[in-house]
Amino acid sequence: MSIITLTTDYGLKDHFVGALKGKILSEYAEAVIVDISHDIDNFNTAEASYIIDAAYKSFPKGTVHLIGVDSERNKENQHIAIQWNDHYFVCADNGILGMLTQKIVPQKMVAVNIHDRLPVDATDLDVFVTVASHIAKGGLLNVIGREIQSIKQVTELKPVIAADKNSIKGYVIYIDHFGNVVVNITKQLFLEVAKGRAYEIALNEKIKQNDRSNIKNIWPKYSDIAVSDKFPIKNYEGQKLAIFNEAGYLEIAIFRSNPASVGSASSLLGLNYRDTITIRFQ
Amino acid sequence: MSIITLTTDYGLKDHFVGALKGKILSEYAEAVIVDISHDIDNFNTAEASYIIDAAYKSFPKGTVHLIGVDSERNKENQHIAIQWNDHYFVCADNGILGMLTQKIVPQKMVAVNIHDRLPVDATDLDVFVTVASHIAKGGLLNVIGREIQSIKQVTELKPVIAADKNSIKGYVIYIDHFGNVVVNITKQLFLEVAKGRAYEIALNEKIKQNDRSNIKNIWPKYSDIAVSDKFPIKNYEGQKLAIFNEAGYLEIAIFRSNPASVGSASSLLGLNYRDTITIRFQ
Amino acid sequence: MSIITLTTDYGLKDHFVGALKGKILSEYAEAVIVDISHDIDNFNTAEASYIIDAAYKSFPKGTVHLIGVDSERNKENQHIAIQWNDHYFVCADNGILGMLTQKIVPQKMVAVNIHDRLPVDATDLDVFVTVASHIAKGGLLNVIGREIQSIKQVTELKPVIAADKNSIKGYVIYIDHFGNVVVNITKQLFLEVAKGRAYEIALNEKIKQNDRSNIKNIWPKYSDIAVSDKFPIKNYEGQKLAIFNEAGYLEIAIFRSNPASVGSASSLLGLNYRDTITIRFQ
Repeated sequence: MSIITLTTDYGLKDHFVGALKGKILSEYAEAVIVDISHDIDNFNTAEASYIIDAAYKSFPKGTVHLIGVDSERNKENQHIAIQWNDHYFVCADNGILGMLTQKIVPQKMVAVNIHDRLPVDATDLDVFVTVASHIAKGGLLNVIGREIQSIKQVTELKPVIAADKNSIKGYVIYIDHFGNVVVNITKQLFLEVAKGRAYEIALNEKIKQNDRSNIKNIWPKYSDIAVSDKFPIKNYEGQKLAIFNEAGYLEIAIFRSNPASVGSASSLLGLNYRDTITIRFQ
Repeated sequence: MSIITLTTDYGLKDHFVGALKGKILSEYAEAVIVDISHDIDNFNTAEASYIIDAAYKSFPKGTVHLIGVDSERNKENQHIAIQWNDHYFVCADNGILGMLTQKIVPQKMVAVNIHDRLPVDATDLDVFVTVASHIAKGGLLNVIGREIQSIKQVTELKPVIAADKNSIKGYVIYIDHFGNVVVNITKQLFLEVAKGRAYEIALNEKIKQNDRSNIKNIWPKYSDIAVSDKFPIKNYEGQKLAIFNEAGYLEIAIFRSNPASVGSASSLLGLNYRDTITIRFQ
Repeated sequence: MSIITLTTDYGLKDHFVGALKGKILSEYAEAVIVDISHDIDNFNTAEASYIIDAAYKSFPKGTVHLIGVDSERNKENQHIAIQWNDHYFVCADNGILGMLTQKIVPQKMVAVNIHDRLPVDATDLDVFVTVASHIAKGGLLNVIGREIQSIKQVTELKPVIAADKNSIKGYVIYIDHFGNVVVNITKQLFLEVAKGRAYEIALNEKIKQNDRSNIKNIWPKYSDIAVSDKFPIKNYEGQKLAIFNEAGYLEIAIFRSNPASVGSASSLLGLNYRDTITIRFQ
């Protein structure tokens, strides 16, 4: 059994995702296909990059991750297939794998060169399906591409450690379904800089709600905010808090908030994509 | 083959659902995973409860239902696994299984106690994945938990039969994709109280449309409203009607309405979650 | 292995799609179930028709396509099962297969007649599940229905070729997730009428943006609009263009537009369902 995951900006209303699965099953009937997300913001390679980074580690080694975001092959972007950390990624070379490859060096990278072997009306997705099925069946990267030494990096803002090491400035990289705000400060980076010092998280200037206090704890999990045994957990609903999420990133949340009714960390704290969050150490 | 169903409030944009499936397939590669819903209103255990109750019976006996709604283990809620009506349910003990267990007594209930055996950074979902995979592979509940005698009940409003048995008052428990309004009066309860008498369904006071008449029939299916052979079915579009839905609950609908354009039973009749509906018998 | 695809207007919030899959797996545990779309506009058989037409060809021959849109069996619509182009379709006879059957004559058509053999409370979907599972397992159409000679056609607007063959007038049949506008002029029809002549695509009168120029090229793919090597592809973002999409239909797009932010071909060009688009030949 081999798993092929799908991450696209196709949405679920159109026939695109169903057709993509039909094509994979036509090439490789035993494929186990798993959707990661089809609601990536259109052409947003940075968002796709975060989602892939957060998701891949939950899959077994050997899984093939097909990424259909900004996937057109053109004079600027070629199609690539990468072996990285024992997982495989098939996408256009548009910087989408930057978050992964800046952490660990890829095992192998190829520029896909099978386009001439496919029918003339083959779409970009047909290419991806052929490549992903080939790899999922155990085929070698060399058979479908020629080896390359580098791929493009996304030019995303990176967290900045102050010269005096007394603060880290991070950027919002994602707002999730619960309206929680994900910041590009990893637990690992935090621990390296913190060295056990006390800290507080300064939110940005736009905060409109009454509670302008800074966050002084990053909890292991959401309901750890309910520190007192005297009160039921319900009493803490609506309070802001921070955790390191399961993807390893700093996350600012409102405890049990509902974006559709009372609001979320994003709406209540006025935090949007690319806003800054600063952790100050004492 | 064993089926594991998923019901969560994670939404489909984030990586959570994909990651959850990756974890299940990592533990149990042969699992057949079926989504029930990932659009449960955030932390809404009552809504999850209705969806699970309506869906489980379509699956074969032995199916494992993983419910990721308000699933954090904390000082108030432990993780539980229940064998009920030859199905299995894995969730937090937050009252979510109340609609089921008030109908039939569970066959076995355990409080999950494997947390010490998992890595320290295991998430609540990791626990559910381990438990669900264990059961799906045929494992015993006793191996992953200690037997308990009771679980929490949701404190939802229950239908009220008048002292003179001449009416049943129910509450709206769900508004579906078509804007149809589901009421917590089951066909079984209706038949027990009705004893063949004529009846009418009094909608609530908020109704704004011109047609203020009560509903006098509960049809077997929607298009039964088209009673006359003289007219095409199209002529009946926009009329209000009642049926018992496939989940066995009273449902108020507008025939072939579209919530996005003309409106639905919920919007046109002004019926919302927890509003009352009364059936009066003659 | 047999694939059963699902196309419905049930949405993904309710339990309906999950329950449908549970029923299929209860009847036929080995079924490979693939979602095509569950976000068809409610009761919109024309939209379902386009989606099915665009999707089916990506699946292997022998695939069974279950269509749950306006699926109630009533005095006007019976349930049907069709073998067409070596694929199978199970749906109500509401015109939904018109786009297919006007192209190629079906191999076999039956009116489903198993309703008496099912439990009295069997729903329309239960019928479809039984029929689809029967066919997916290799069963014959004759066993579940009686042969018929015709099915209903959707009364959709058809493209009109001018008497002098100097223009084709088409209609918008679908707006996709990217806001791209799909027109019912196929590449095949275009080539037959064009006979190599130059042409331009006149958009309708409602266009509000400054760029009122007509489109003079139908490109093989989106980024072919970036004709000059002097500029990066990014410079072409926001320009309108036309392609023949992978389903074979004329599509009007805004290069890399985002409906949620800057707008799309549909919103920026003021093109909606059933609006006209004319191709004029020189």
